[in-house]
This record gives sequence, structure tokens and C-alpha cells, in this order.
Amino acid sequence: MSDPAVQVKPLAHDQIRALQWRGDRLRLLDQRKLPLAEEWIECRGAEEVAQAIRNLVVRGAPAIGIAAAWGVVLAAQRGDDLDKAIATLRATRPTAVNLMWALDRMRARADAGADAPALADEAQKIQDEDLAANRAMGAKGAALIEPGSAVLTHCNTGSLATAGFGTALGVIRAGVAQHRIAQVYAGETRPWLQGARLTMWELQRDGIPATLIADAAASHLLKEGRVRWVIVGADRIAANGDTANKIGTYQLAIAAKHHGVKFMVVAPSSTIDMAAPDGDAIEIELRDPAELLSHDGARTVVEGAQAWNPVFDVTPHALIDAIVTERGVIARPDADRMRAQFGSGGPR
Amino acid sequence: MSDPAVQVKPLAHDQIRALQWRGDRLRLLDQRKLPLAEEWIECRGAEEVAQAIRNLVVRGAPAIGIAAAWGVVLAAQRGDDLDKAIATLRATRPTAVNLMWALDRMRARADAGADAPALADEAQKIQDEDLAANRAMGAKGAALIEPGSAVLTHCNTGSLATAGFGTALGVIRAGVAQHRIAQVYAGETRPWLQGARLTMWELQRDGIPATLIADAAASHLLKEGRVRWVIVGADRIAANGDTANKIGTYQLAIAAKHHGVKFMVVAPSSTIDMAAPDGDAIEIELRDPAELLSHDGARTVVEGAQAWNPVFDVTPHALIDAIVTERGVIARPDADRMRAQFGSGGPR
Repeated sequence: MSDPAVQVKPLAHDQIRALQWRGDRLRLLDQRKLPLAEEWIECRGAEEVAQAIRNLVVRGAPAIGIAAAWGVVLAAQRGDDLDKAIATLRATRPTAVNLMWALDRMRARADAGADAPALADEAQKIQDEDLAANRAMGAKGAALIEPGSAVLTHCNTGSLATAGFGTALGVIRAGVAQHRIAQVYAGETRPWLQGARLTMWELQRDGIPATLIADAAASHLLKEGRVRWVIVGADRIAANGDTANKIGTYQLAIAAKHHGVKFMVVAPSSTIDMAAPDGDAIEIELRDPAELLSHDGARTVVEGAQAWNPVFDVTPHALIDAIVTERGVIARPDADRMRAQFGSGGPR
Repeated sequence: MSDPAVQVKPLAHDQIRALQWRGDRLRLLDQRKLPLAEEWIECRGAEEVAQAIRNLVVRGAPAIGIAAAWGVVLAAQRGDDLDKAIATLRATRPTAVNLMWALDRMRARADAGADAPALADEAQKIQDEDLAANRAMGAKGAALIEPGSAVLTHCNTGSLATAGFGTALGVIRAGVAQHRIAQVYAGETRPWLQGARLTMWELQRDGIPATLIADAAASHLLKEGRVRWVIVGADRIAANGDTANKIGTYQLAIAAKHHGVKFMVVAPSSTIDMAAPDGDAIEIELRDPAELLSHDGARTVVEGAQAWNPVFDVTPHALIDAIVTERGVIARPDADRMRAQFGSGGPR
């Protein structure tokens, strides 16, 4: 890699920065190419950022929000119509609320008369706050884990999905550094294989040994009794604690409950949507069935086959032992406990 | 396809015969190549059959047993050492008990002085009985399903996994023919994608519309409320009803229980192992981690990554609503109900 993905002085187990602002362009580590190639894409306008979000060059709820904020900055720098740019960016992905949250924040600054440099300050603030939130969540989440535990995670919630350090993977980074976590299992996360392609790459890059499993092997693993926590991120958390996250999360939560394994959701407060009373109010993105029917462009399923490809699901709050945000830990979340921390209006 | 996989007059939705004896050789539809190519492999000796079982040219517990029986016939025809041939065949795969059952049956005939033609009669009997058992199970299992139901299955348990018609897919074939089953969902079944590659091919070939899902999407599907039964096969059923089957089956059983969806295991009595008191006595095959680390020979995970690749798991009998064999239906199976149908010595 000619340009290593390192921007700030790293902590232990924290080398990767996949989203880099360069004054007049946004550099994104192309996550579709990992782990076989480390290629960067440069976006010089809001439409390019929107395309990178739609095409999964950048994914992960917090990273999508940050990228969109920089997309607004690029539009402002070029004198483009901000309303149009924001509408385009907002329409890229429906489930992650961080996208809407970041765009609302940029719009509020623009409506208050901010020029391009002031909007860039705001985007940088969103990015810096995300990294700080992840470090805070890492400390709070790791404190819940008994020394010597094995943990299981799903999808990718690390530096690749955020400004850096990660949400669930941030807790895992902190837990490994504190010797609370002795072993990390990662589910491969079909259909995009973010766990296999991204989490395994990211953890190896940062010196954290991990073991990959098929998503369907999770319950067999939990039955063995070594895993004490399942730790996942979130794309949107409703006012009662119901949590939308990568497809398969709900199944892991059911399996964890069945085995007496604890279940932790880690997400910055920008993921909380107090306007959504419960999980039924969260739109679940359905993507092209083709994602299940072929692999790297080569067909694996008979021509003419049907597939159903929801890429998120909702885990009811009753299956969650702890929601960790940068503001603190909500144990056994419900509407009352969520309101006590986030108020009725929420962080938005 | 120059030589269609059709041998006997088919019933509706029952066109495929993947295992064909030709007097001096065993023809096997190469399941590693499906659905992209329909290629046949010819085995002319026991070692070739053993290799086909090891390499997954033929897979599925009943089909493995039948193929092994023909392997013994080939050894007898060639005047090979039968003890050695049987030992080689027995060592190919550890979990499916049908393999041991079929080889025990062939050995008993050989020990009683059967020559090659008599052994061929016995192998043909094993194959014919399997097909008859599947049709019987299809009728018994389908009778449990309310008209208009959606069902979910896992792995491939169809004509490709048996002498024909299938176990769980046999129930689905019968249920569709009787309009009891209105919709079929198939889990893709990582890491080998038997659901995606084989079940979707087989069902389309036989005119049964099916919808593919990621294994991790099963709970999200069950939450929607349309699926009334999860229907799976088995590689070995212990004396108390605990059932070893393809990795992911246990997770589906937990999810089914959580959602009040019923769970059916369909397997011929040759799958029952009354010598195994419970699931702990069943050896679970661990295969090469490489199966999770690459796809069609192309690496998908970072070099040096670890993976854990158990390819079966055990579903405790308490999660099973019905075990269907050709002898009948055992509702809410336990050791007493199993003993009542199979005796203490079992069908072996």
C-alpha cells in the first residue's frame, strides 16, 4: 500500500483510518476490494460521495454519516445546490440513521449561514466526535467484560465502519488491550462477508487474533460455553431500545438468550432515533437478490432463482443486556431507561 | 446435458436421479459442479467411490450410504480385499451414520458368503428401499402441514442427497403436490452453499418455486409469521432424538422455538443410531478452515486468518416437534418415544 491508512498517532490495536479529508477531496479506502487489495477512491463532489455510499465503497452507519457530511462540504466548495446535494446523499441508504443525523447537522449550520470553511469545520467536528465517542464506548463497554472471556461479533463495526477505533470492535480493541477478552470470534456475515473480508483484515492488521465462523455456526459455538458476550453495532436504535443492525444480529440475540450469553449493542448516540417509538418504525433495506445469487460476479445459483435479501433486522430490546453509547451504559434497555438518558427528543 | 438425470418414471416434482448403477460402474452427478454444469463421474472401484464421498462429489447422508454399498460391490467384482475396501469407505466421513449402516449391511451379506451379483442385489435393495422410504416419509410428513403454509429448509436433502425424492425435500415435494405448502424458503447453507447451489437447482428443475435466503436471515423471516414449519434432514439421530445435521440446523431450531414455528426432522430409519444415547455421543466433523477462507479457489479472507469450520451440529430433542421416518411420526421425541418405535437395539 503506497499510502498507509494511518492518519493520527495510533493507540495500541488502532492503526486504521479509512476516511481521510484532504482539503478539497475525500479519500475513501475502497471496502469492496478488501482484503485482497487496498485501493483508495477520491471523491470531489457530493454525487461521488453518494455513489460511494450506495456502492458500499464506504459502509458502516457512523462512517456513512461522516462521509455524507464531507459530501455537503464538497458541494459547498463547488457552489453546488446544497438542498439537492443533501437530498441525494440522504437517499443513498435508508436504515442507518447516522446519515440523516449528520445531514441534519450540516443543514442546520448551512441554514445559519455557514460558508464552506465553516461547514468543513462542522464535518471535521462530526468526524472527531465520532472517534472520541468510540474511545469512550470502548472503555465503558470493556468494563462490562470479565477477564479471560471469549466474545463473538458480527459484520464490521471497526475503524472501517467509523472515524476510527470502532463501536463493537472498539469495545473489543479495548477489551483485548485490558486482557478482558482472550478470544474473538467473527461471523462471516453473508451476503457481503463484511466479517470475513473486513473484520478479519482489520483485526489482523491491528494485531488482534480472531477466528472466523460461518454465521450458521454461532449457536454451536455458544453451546460450547466459552463465549460470554455477543457484541454488535447498530444502524438505528429506537426509543425503546429496539435495535436495527446487520441481518443476522437478531438471530444471534435469540441464540445468546437461549444459551445465557450476554448481548451488547455499541453505538454512538447519533444512532439513537427517539422519533422511532420501536423497531417497527425502522425501515429495513431490501437489496438486490443478485447479491445472494452470485459471488464476485460469478453466478452460484441456478438462473431464474428467486432470493430475498433484507440486509438489516431488528433485535427487540428484551434480548439486549446492554446498550453502550458515549454517554454511558443502559442495562436491560427499555423505553423508560432510554428516555432517562436521551430525553424524549433524543440527541437529534 | 447429454445424459439426463432421469432413470425411473418420475412422479410429479421428482425428476432427478443423481446416483446411477450401470452394472460395472457407479455414475455420480458431480455435486461440486452444480448448478453451473451437470457433469457425471464414473467410479469403477471402491477407492474411487471413497474419493467421491471425501471430495463431496456425492453428499447427503442416505446418498453416501448407497454410494458406499456400490463401492463394496465394485470391490467384490474386481476381487479386491473387501475388508480393506469397507475400511476405506467407512473412514471417508464420520458424522452420517447411514454410511456405517450400509457398510454393516453389505458386510453381513459378504460374511454370509454372498458373491458379487448377490452383493449387487443387496446394494440395489438399499437404494430401492431408500427411495421407497423417502416416498413414505413424504406422505407422513406432508400430512402434518396445514394447507397454505410457507416452510423453510436447510442444506440439500433432496434427490441429490438420497436415492431420489429426498427426506425433508421429499416432504416438501409431497406438500407442494398436495397444496399444503404454498411457499418454500431455502437457506443458502454456508460454507458449501448446498442450499444455494443444490436445493435451488433441484427445486427449479422439478418445478417447485423457492426463495433463497442468507442463513442469517432465517429469524427475520420467521418473525414475519408466514413460515409454519422448518423442515430439515439428519445425518445421525441418537436414541433420545437428539439430531446431528448440517451446521446451522441447531440455530434454526432455536429460532423456530422462539417464534412458535414447528420443527420437523425427516430421515430414514437408517439414520437412527440407538447405540448413541444422546447427541454428545455423535462425532461432529471438523473440516478444513480453508472452506471458509476462499471461494471457488479465490481467497476472500486475509492471509494468515484462522477459521473454525464444524460442518454439523446437534439439535437437542426438546427443540424438535416431529421426527419423521418411513416407520411413522414421533411427535415430541424423547428416549421413551424413540425406544417404542425403534427398540433398544435400533434398526442396525
